[in-house]
Amino acid sequence: MRQSKLLTKTRKEGPKDEVSKNANLLIRAGFINKEMAGVYDYLPLGLRVMQKIENIIRDEMNKLGGLEMKTSIIQSKEVWEKSNRWSDELVDNWFKTKLKNGTEVGLSFTNEEAYANILKQYISSYKDLPVYPYDFKSIFRNEARSKSGMLRGREFYWKAMYSFSKDENEHDEFYEKSKIAYKNIFDRVGIGHLTYLTFASGGTFSKFSHEFQAVTPAGEDTIYFDEKKKIAVNREVYNDEVLKSLGLEKNKLVELKSIEVGNIFSLGTKFSEPFDLKYKNEKSEDKFVVMGSYGIGLGRLMGTVVEILSDEKGMIWPVSIAPFKVHLVELISENIKVKETAEKLYNELAKAGIEVLYDDRNARAGEKFNDSDLIGIPIRIVVSEKGLEKGEFEIKQRMDGKVLSLKENEIINFVEKYK
Amino acid sequence: MRQSKLLTKTRKEGPKDEVSKNANLLIRAGFINKEMAGVYDYLPLGLRVMQKIENIIRDEMNKLGGLEMKTSIIQSKEVWEKSNRWSDELVDNWFKTKLKNGTEVGLSFTNEEAYANILKQYISSYKDLPVYPYDFKSIFRNEARSKSGMLRGREFYWKAMYSFSKDENEHDEFYEKSKIAYKNIFDRVGIGHLTYLTFASGGTFSKFSHEFQAVTPAGEDTIYFDEKKKIAVNREVYNDEVLKSLGLEKNKLVELKSIEVGNIFSLGTKFSEPFDLKYKNEKSEDKFVVMGSYGIGLGRLMGTVVEILSDEKGMIWPVSIAPFKVHLVELISENIKVKETAEKLYNELAKAGIEVLYDDRNARAGEKFNDSDLIGIPIRIVVSEKGLEKGEFEIKQRMDGKVLSLKENEIINFVEKYK
Repeated sequence: MRQSKLLTKTRKEGPKDEVSKNANLLIRAGFINKEMAGVYDYLPLGLRVMQKIENIIRDEMNKLGGLEMKTSIIQSKEVWEKSNRWSDELVDNWFKTKLKNGTEVGLSFTNEEAYANILKQYISSYKDLPVYPYDFKSIFRNEARSKSGMLRGREFYWKAMYSFSKDENEHDEFYEKSKIAYKNIFDRVGIGHLTYLTFASGGTFSKFSHEFQAVTPAGEDTIYFDEKKKIAVNREVYNDEVLKSLGLEKNKLVELKSIEVGNIFSLGTKFSEPFDLKYKNEKSEDKFVVMGSYGIGLGRLMGTVVEILSDEKGMIWPVSIAPFKVHLVELISENIKVKETAEKLYNELAKAGIEVLYDDRNARAGEKFNDSDLIGIPIRIVVSEKGLEKGEFEIKQRMDGKVLSLKENEIINFVEKYK
Repeated sequence: MRQSKLLTKTRKEGPKDEVSKNANLLIRAGFINKEMAGVYDYLPLGLRVMQKIENIIRDEMNKLGGLEMKTSIIQSKEVWEKSNRWSDELVDNWFKTKLKNGTEVGLSFTNEEAYANILKQYISSYKDLPVYPYDFKSIFRNEARSKSGMLRGREFYWKAMYSFSKDENEHDEFYEKSKIAYKNIFDRVGIGHLTYLTFASGGTFSKFSHEFQAVTPAGEDTIYFDEKKKIAVNREVYNDEVLKSLGLEKNKLVELKSIEVGNIFSLGTKFSEPFDLKYKNEKSEDKFVVMGSYGIGLGRLMGTVVEILSDEKGMIWPVSIAPFKVHLVELISENIKVKETAEKLYNELAKAGIEVLYDDRNARAGEKFNDSDLIGIPIRIVVSEKGLEKGEFEIKQRMDGKVLSLKENEIINFVEKYK
């Protein structure tokens, strides 16, 4: 698309009250707008990134056998009272509101109750299990403070899958598969090399839950990481007994700051009991369904990618989730051939199915290069008078800063192969 | 996908408090779940329909030059006070809630304010206009009563585009284009033949707004329709003066019940003035931006399709938005060849990229046929012992009830061509 029609513009400074690097860069580059602390709008560039992240997660969930649905944001009090999570004394980050007739309702802050309540209608026999429904939806958490930009929102966009299995064995088997799917997701969005499976506190039904922690100084979490085994332990369960049970040695662990980008949790019958979510097994005996939960915050993941993949000039998007693959920058010239060549190349790239942002604005070269570095599209192609004289185009890779020169007929092939 | 893994099942009756035909059929067929009056969850079948409707609308909005973004649901009081729409005395269907620090916030019930507020940062020159941002998002309206199923929700999924133009001329030109895009949308989802452009009340800045009204006895609106001219007048502006100005004659109009499935509105400077949304024209003079709004409720549209395209047996989806194109129904038999043939055909159809729901359940033929009619997938293919003996498959078209017999090697070609 043409940058002159993009709607947004870059800005030199983020909002004064925005202390996080991720939100500052995203706001300055025009990816998001800050509605208030912890509440952001996705502008066209930001939504393109989010939709790509969503499609990667959807693909991995579908490969796991997931069934996508979309549950409501407004939630009934009666449903949440069953699991004893309605009371503000027990769950302190609810947003609640009222219908005209005075009925109290809540804004969805997680999905165990909604799913257990819906699935109760449909599960009666062992033949109905296992099932793996999931949602992408906006989630609301009334955080007292929200200073980490996209890392901790009051309103955020989220994927949650729940597993409904016949027994612990069936659950465990799926739980292990979900770890691989999660690893694939973090690899595909470009932070797999810094994201580690981390043991965290479990609950009544399992000794541990598992987090995926992405290492960055911006993280609010602390993990203890074994470089060789590529696993970590969250601070909350970092003690001698746990380390021993995991075969880890204290002196081989490094303390690191990190962001929890994913969480998987064995729920046992914690929710199926209060919702009376039972099935008849092959002997016609009543059994409780065994549940698990598998969450990822998409906005937080986007913010984490920005924290990890950025430099002093701006963001550095991996091809897989970049808003565009190519930033075509036309350096304004009196020689009409420059614009003609840029327009021609823009059309050829589009025709080849390549996503291109074409900087057709009447602006100085320095401004264009600064904006390009800030926005962080993987491949920058410069069309300039100097280049035209040599019959060459300057190609700059944002990831490693490498510059090369290509002839016009070499460009499409280079871009298509670039990953 | 296999019906045995669909998660949902059909039911004989809808909820007792659900009086609308659309929600009753959708609930009975397992497309949606009722959370409370006016609040529904989309189950896998229902979400597939919604995603197809969303993609059709997205396609038409992008063709108009639309730029997709996603604004927040939580909205600041300060923003809405500018246009004087915060007070509950002036807007009585707000859902409001509070942050931990006591700050009041609202849940988005429309988007003029959010867009005017965001775009103010980016619009300064005539070069920045026109722009056409749009959103798909969940919208909240605190309706006192909500008895029409998907036709009037307290929470509903919605597309809203806003146009930001330099002047009335530029606005009018886009407004006319939007009418064509809207017509395309209603044609593509299968109700174009019963959906009419309707003159409705305007506002300070234009004599009329325009609605797209779909004719059905389930409608809550009343329109006066000119069969020959294919335009209608909403009851609210049905008077001699208006009829005269539109060149319509009272005795040629038919009174009809209808559902408003779309609405387009010229806003003039109603919102750009309070938000001080100005640009400098080519002479460096300050001018207010001219706005328009273009809305469609996706859940209401889905409910309208059900009201219009259904019979006493169930729903009748057009191919364009059907959850699946083919319902492959295996009639359980002791002859193992029946299952083998059904499995083979299922794989062949899937390989050809055709969306198939395969009824592989161990259930009676009558139950399978009833479910198939209720769910309303366009093409039903029956695999039965009787058919196999003749070397034929029974194909039934849900739209017109036509039955035909095809040989195995004719099926894929027939399905691919079916529209």
